[in-house]
Amino acid sequence: MAAGKFVEQVEMQGHIVDSLLLPKVLDAILSRGGRYHVLKFQMGERQDDTSFVRIEIKADNAPQLEGILAEIHPHGAVPTDPTDCTTKVADVVGAFPEGFYCSTNFRTQARLHKEWVEVEDQEMDCGVVIDPEGAARCLPMTAVQLGDRIVVGRRGMRVLPPEVELRKHELFEFMASPVSSERPKGVSVREIAAAMRRTRAAGEKIMAVLGPAVVHTGGSELIATMIRLGFIDVLFAGNALATHDMEQAIYGTSLGVSLDHGLPTDEGHEHHLRTINTIRRLGGSRQAIENGVVKSGIIYECHQRKIPVVLCGSIRDDGPLPEVITDAIGAQNEMRKHVPGTGFCLMVATTLHSIAVGNLLPASVKVACVDINPATVTKLMDRGSTQTVGIVSDAEPFIRALVAELEK
Amino acid sequence: MAAGKFVEQVEMQGHIVDSLLLPKVLDAILSRGGRYHVLKFQMGERQDDTSFVRIEIKADNAPQLEGILAEIHPHGAVPTDPTDCTTKVADVVGAFPEGFYCSTNFRTQARLHKEWVEVEDQEMDCGVVIDPEGAARCLPMTAVQLGDRIVVGRRGMRVLPPEVELRKHELFEFMASPVSSERPKGVSVREIAAAMRRTRAAGEKIMAVLGPAVVHTGGSELIATMIRLGFIDVLFAGNALATHDMEQAIYGTSLGVSLDHGLPTDEGHEHHLRTINTIRRLGGSRQAIENGVVKSGIIYECHQRKIPVVLCGSIRDDGPLPEVITDAIGAQNEMRKHVPGTGFCLMVATTLHSIAVGNLLPASVKVACVDINPATVTKLMDRGSTQTVGIVSDAEPFIRALVAELEK
Amino acid sequence: MAAGKFVEQVEMQGHIVDSLLLPKVLDAILSRGGRYHVLKFQMGERQDDTSFVRIEIKADNAPQLEGILAEIHPHGAVPTDPTDCTTKVADVVGAFPEGFYCSTNFRTQARLHKEWVEVEDQEMDCGVVIDPEGAARCLPMTAVQLGDRIVVGRRGMRVLPPEVELRKHELFEFMASPVSSERPKGVSVREIAAAMRRTRAAGEKIMAVLGPAVVHTGGSELIATMIRLGFIDVLFAGNALATHDMEQAIYGTSLGVSLDHGLPTDEGHEHHLRTINTIRRLGGSRQAIENGVVKSGIIYECHQRKIPVVLCGSIRDDGPLPEVITDAIGAQNEMRKHVPGTGFCLMVATTLHSIAVGNLLPASVKVACVDINPATVTKLMDRGSTQTVGIVSDAEPFIRALVAELEK
Amino acid sequence: MAAGKFVEQVEMQGHIVDSLLLPKVLDAILSRGGRYHVLKFQMGERQDDTSFVRIEIKADNAPQLEGILAEIHPHGAVPTDPTDCTTKVADVVGAFPEGFYCSTNFRTQARLHKEWVEVEDQEMDCGVVIDPEGAARCLPMTAVQLGDRIVVGRRGMRVLPPEVELRKHELFEFMASPVSSERPKGVSVREIAAAMRRTRAAGEKIMAVLGPAVVHTGGSELIATMIRLGFIDVLFAGNALATHDMEQAIYGTSLGVSLDHGLPTDEGHEHHLRTINTIRRLGGSRQAIENGVVKSGIIYECHQRKIPVVLCGSIRDDGPLPEVITDAIGAQNEMRKHVPGTGFCLMVATTLHSIAVGNLLPASVKVACVDINPATVTKLMDRGSTQTVGIVSDAEPFIRALVAELEK
Repeated sequence: MAAGKFVEQVEMQGHIVDSLLLPKVLDAILSRGGRYHVLKFQMGERQDDTSFVRIEIKADNAPQLEGILAEIHPHGAVPTDPTDCTTKVADVVGAFPEGFYCSTNFRTQARLHKEWVEVEDQEMDCGVVIDPEGAARCLPMTAVQLGDRIVVGRRGMRVLPPEVELRKHELFEFMASPVSSERPKGVSVREIAAAMRRTRAAGEKIMAVLGPAVVHTGGSELIATMIRLGFIDVLFAGNALATHDMEQAIYGTSLGVSLDHGLPTDEGHEHHLRTINTIRRLGGSRQAIENGVVKSGIIYECHQRKIPVVLCGSIRDDGPLPEVITDAIGAQNEMRKHVPGTGFCLMVATTLHSIAVGNLLPASVKVACVDINPATVTKLMDRGSTQTVGIVSDAEPFIRALVAELEK
Repeated sequence: MAAGKFVEQVEMQGHIVDSLLLPKVLDAILSRGGRYHVLKFQMGERQDDTSFVRIEIKADNAPQLEGILAEIHPHGAVPTDPTDCTTKVADVVGAFPEGFYCSTNFRTQARLHKEWVEVEDQEMDCGVVIDPEGAARCLPMTAVQLGDRIVVGRRGMRVLPPEVELRKHELFEFMASPVSSERPKGVSVREIAAAMRRTRAAGEKIMAVLGPAVVHTGGSELIATMIRLGFIDVLFAGNALATHDMEQAIYGTSLGVSLDHGLPTDEGHEHHLRTINTIRRLGGSRQAIENGVVKSGIIYECHQRKIPVVLCGSIRDDGPLPEVITDAIGAQNEMRKHVPGTGFCLMVATTLHSIAVGNLLPASVKVACVDINPATVTKLMDRGSTQTVGIVSDAEPFIRALVAELEK
Repeated sequence: MAAGKFVEQVEMQGHIVDSLLLPKVLDAILSRGGRYHVLKFQMGERQDDTSFVRIEIKADNAPQLEGILAEIHPHGAVPTDPTDCTTKVADVVGAFPEGFYCSTNFRTQARLHKEWVEVEDQEMDCGVVIDPEGAARCLPMTAVQLGDRIVVGRRGMRVLPPEVELRKHELFEFMASPVSSERPKGVSVREIAAAMRRTRAAGEKIMAVLGPAVVHTGGSELIATMIRLGFIDVLFAGNALATHDMEQAIYGTSLGVSLDHGLPTDEGHEHHLRTINTIRRLGGSRQAIENGVVKSGIIYECHQRKIPVVLCGSIRDDGPLPEVITDAIGAQNEMRKHVPGTGFCLMVATTLHSIAVGNLLPASVKVACVDINPATVTKLMDRGSTQTVGIVSDAEPFIRALVAELEK
Repeated sequence: MAAGKFVEQVEMQGHIVDSLLLPKVLDAILSRGGRYHVLKFQMGERQDDTSFVRIEIKADNAPQLEGILAEIHPHGAVPTDPTDCTTKVADVVGAFPEGFYCSTNFRTQARLHKEWVEVEDQEMDCGVVIDPEGAARCLPMTAVQLGDRIVVGRRGMRVLPPEVELRKHELFEFMASPVSSERPKGVSVREIAAAMRRTRAAGEKIMAVLGPAVVHTGGSELIATMIRLGFIDVLFAGNALATHDMEQAIYGTSLGVSLDHGLPTDEGHEHHLRTINTIRRLGGSRQAIENGVVKSGIIYECHQRKIPVVLCGSIRDDGPLPEVITDAIGAQNEMRKHVPGTGFCLMVATTLHSIAVGNLLPASVKVACVDINPATVTKLMDRGSTQTVGIVSDAEPFIRALVAELEK
């Protein structure tokens, strides 16, 4: 075995020590059975200085070396001697060529004609297509057309992972054990309110992703207030949230449970289905609002303020409401349209939609995910969004506190 | 207020005391502010004798009386003086007339020409359509055609709720606190195995509804064994389960985690997307199996044994695989086709699919729902299937014990 | 086998149909393989009328009959032909005679000299001792003295189980699926506040049982407000709650997490231990308050208002504080002293203490158990307190809403 | 502000980059508002080489500097110019002098007479006492005697934090997201079995910490098998586990639930109390085993093989059994005696005991914590044991697989 043949030099630059990027790279090399040799290391003397490292990686065979390079790529390690990226022409509709470059949700650049070009529409788990004009952008698998030039391999691609902020003065800069329910909730509420205010001040959009428990627990009017205060710019939800919300507007119940006295009734359960049927008979929520059938709630308030609402279907839906997009790919594409310009995303009480939206957002969008079930929060954070803060709490009481803070 | 005007007589027959039906009816009347007068009561002297009761219900106003009658209807209370059911002609495509009868998942009969006719395709949250030939069957809202004769109101409809078995000698006859994780697991395993054997012996189908954690936790080969043993007749799942399963067949990993040594790798995460891309390039799972790309696992085994597999899409899917039905309504309809003839349903580690399937099954199909998260089990049981046994346990170890029991 | 020999007649009276007591008794007979014969049944015609039933129970053998009688005893079934209760003299200190009567938490009577005598100090899982004066009372196992006359067997004992209220107009009268997190929280908050007001108006005590997450989540000052408003009359907690509360008073942190900015610090963790050490050096919380070291918080407020505080130790305690009762039996006995006169108990965020206190309370004390973990709520309710309402919610936001409601 | 006055130089040596120690130190300095200047940095060129760094830390004031030094101390940062440690004489029984050094669970050294001396009995949240002979050891707060020489401040103390292993080839060397339930369970089982075999081969003890769900779920006989195979050397548990285990031996039930058919019975619940009473009458478990009353199960097997069993009391105990140590401090001290020589600790299904034992173990003892509730696993890991692997799984099925692996 001539180990010397499976060697690659990579470089990293930035706050690579305190951002944990260098330790992660060294760890990856060793975990996969490789060895390293630090060829050059300049450590930033003070906190504002960046560091630089050049490492020689040695492996026992080609697959091992490839595995190491694949794993360290998202941490910003770039081969010392860069070349242009390689592309292949798509030969199957709706599928990439074999060996396609698989995107992350971090800012990425492609090397074209010896220039590093920014990849647009950054989104994880996509391919990268090179336009005839030489622009690079992320492309979902289902959108591939015959003849698209798709990047293959990692050569000529580099990731610029987010460096952890140097001065940590707010919740979104902390990552340790983020899912515990035993944190001071007043602090989380204040920080989320502050992030929402900053987003609005920066002219960016605030996205809300809400599950049906927001309505069940009694939060409909609170969300309506947030909309009136101008803190929601786009709403993603499902058939259940919209139906429960309008059931409350029509019958005063949510899935048959009275929001005044909290008692379930068997007949009340029918309210759910009758609400959908009524809206379907009228042609949609818009018509129901214009006809005066629905006079309050989240959907009503979005309509009044012209807030876009994307309702995505699922196989457990009753009905559904006419405006629900029942095709999963169609729903993803509709959501994608609203991602550009978004600076903050508030997810409450929904696993399905939270993960679906998390898949679409670039890592630069800050996310707060509130759920009473720690598993939901963990799942979202496991999928790689380092900008996500998870809060284990109860929907209505948490939103109540958040609205009180926003109203200050 | 002439309270006497809001009066209705109802009758109940059967094991109405020990099946809790009568107590529930009395409870419903009082909870809604009504009063009752027991006009006649014959209690079964011995356990095999049925009881009979005639009750006069009094309410303060028409809505209260209507609410009471609506709530007691699913418990089998029928007006003393029955009339034929009433129908209205559907005037909107995909919506019922206002006042439509809303179905339960219990066996139901409609009165037509003074005869009680069995309602076919029993399913909760549907309407009931009367055929020109005089047959009655459940109809989902989206399937309504102009001119369909749809039952409105509860008159002329009666529900025959399941009576709890008199001699309780197995798990499926017990209901108390069914979601606790602190039950002897060996007993649950034996009872489920016995129910599967009985179902097979009765010539009925066993349906499996599986979530991706079945594969993540290492259960792929165990499910494959269950299929080879002939204990799964139809499989409902999503894009994730099928992809993870075939990723394991191709790469030996599941979402990038090696099932041999359990270690996650960043590159491995790409296996997920590459698996989908490969299958899409080949045209589907069938082609991948026939080409020898996929040689083991759940999907492979289903293909070899010609077990129908319905893969339903969701908005958080990557890809998806070509055979995934991405339209939610289309997926529901495809699943519906496999319900007739099903006697037992095993649900493991999936909230979305479990609830979707639970919505489609009549109450006569016994269901075992296994999930490590008590909330999933609770949600399914809250939706009204009294034939559901919930077991809080871990997917792979539970399936391992179940397969060992089935192999005995 | 002469089945006829294993026969017993029992009677029941009250709202035995709508309170589910009769159905439960019939169910128990059949589940255990017995048979019944209804000898007499008078059903209450209207909701205010009680019903009466006399049943003959037949079993195949003596243990089966004994099992049936044991199981139906707590539902209020009493042998038709009552005799005085039987006692045995305790022959071992700290243990009952074999065959001792095992108490429930329901109101119970013992038959002495042909009179039914009320059992005092009702508590589950105790024995019943008969005083020389002829009084009967519950006695914990560890309190048995040589010569105590202890009831053995069920003869001459009768339980008066709580009948479910006839008119259900509040949360505490509903039992279905009480642990769901998807209930309107505003309603739960209002009902608990109303129950606390009613308890205070009735001159009964309100007991609070609090876990450390009350402080971690930021609820210290809210509980202090509840104390100032006069809504807590006795506090049960552990070393952790008291230490966290005083750590906050001294350092502004809880287990080292700042309640102002929510950030954990390694040094901060030491605050916990330093707080305990400081209090131990001073001799106790009282001294720390009197010396001005602790000037706010739950423990401070209890001291100022002379609210009794019982701190019970556990093996995971650091320190502990000087006033913590480290002996488990001593702690139970100290808590027992505060049970008489208690009308309502609010349990927040503690499994250990909630179950310990639940064991001590008679079923007549209403309990609200708030925890973010459904398993805690389920465990408490499984232990048999039918007067318990379980609420799955987050400590601080829930308490915040409750205080706002109480301040109205 | 003369910032220059609040300056300290510290040094670190070892695998400080890939073990994340250096990044954590830089992070701590910045988070607390300090600044750093890297005076010297030698990075290990290859994976076997250690690195060295000397950093100058600047703060704005004394408390800030103190806070930084406190936080980086456990990561192994030591002042460049070391002095002997400082001690104060204990002036209060059962409390340390103010300013006492607060121990971690990492290996620690104290500087005495210019020599670094190993601290014995390493345990977190203790003080350090210097013997008259010059030995240093950890001392719990309650054990402080008048006149003890207790270390104060961090000067002259240094921590040697565990460096993450360089070659990661087993479960215990991975830390990412350790609580997920969606990991391959077969791998976890194999790794735990391997760790137990290695521990035994090394002549170290295996400690088991078991909760009552081990018995409820049906695992009693499996644990008994592990004992017979020689894989448990000491058992920590509570009154509940021991009682349930012996209830099963005597009645075949656990808390009244039959382990043969899984059905709960009201009478069965009494079995729990009757078991305790019987054992109390006999004088203890030993007598019950010697008299032939208890002939199988965990407690029986421990007695037969002379495995030490420490039963710790809690306030929710019934009874308790005579051998239960009801005093929390006494129980902690008894557990402490068994820590030396322990190499591996298996914790199953108990929050209280797991955290209590986790508090006592030095970081060098590897721990596997198995619980169906992710919150339990998270809580244990939050408390700082980096050698802990958390596995979210169900007690009986997991133990069943583990025993099958150990029997291979």
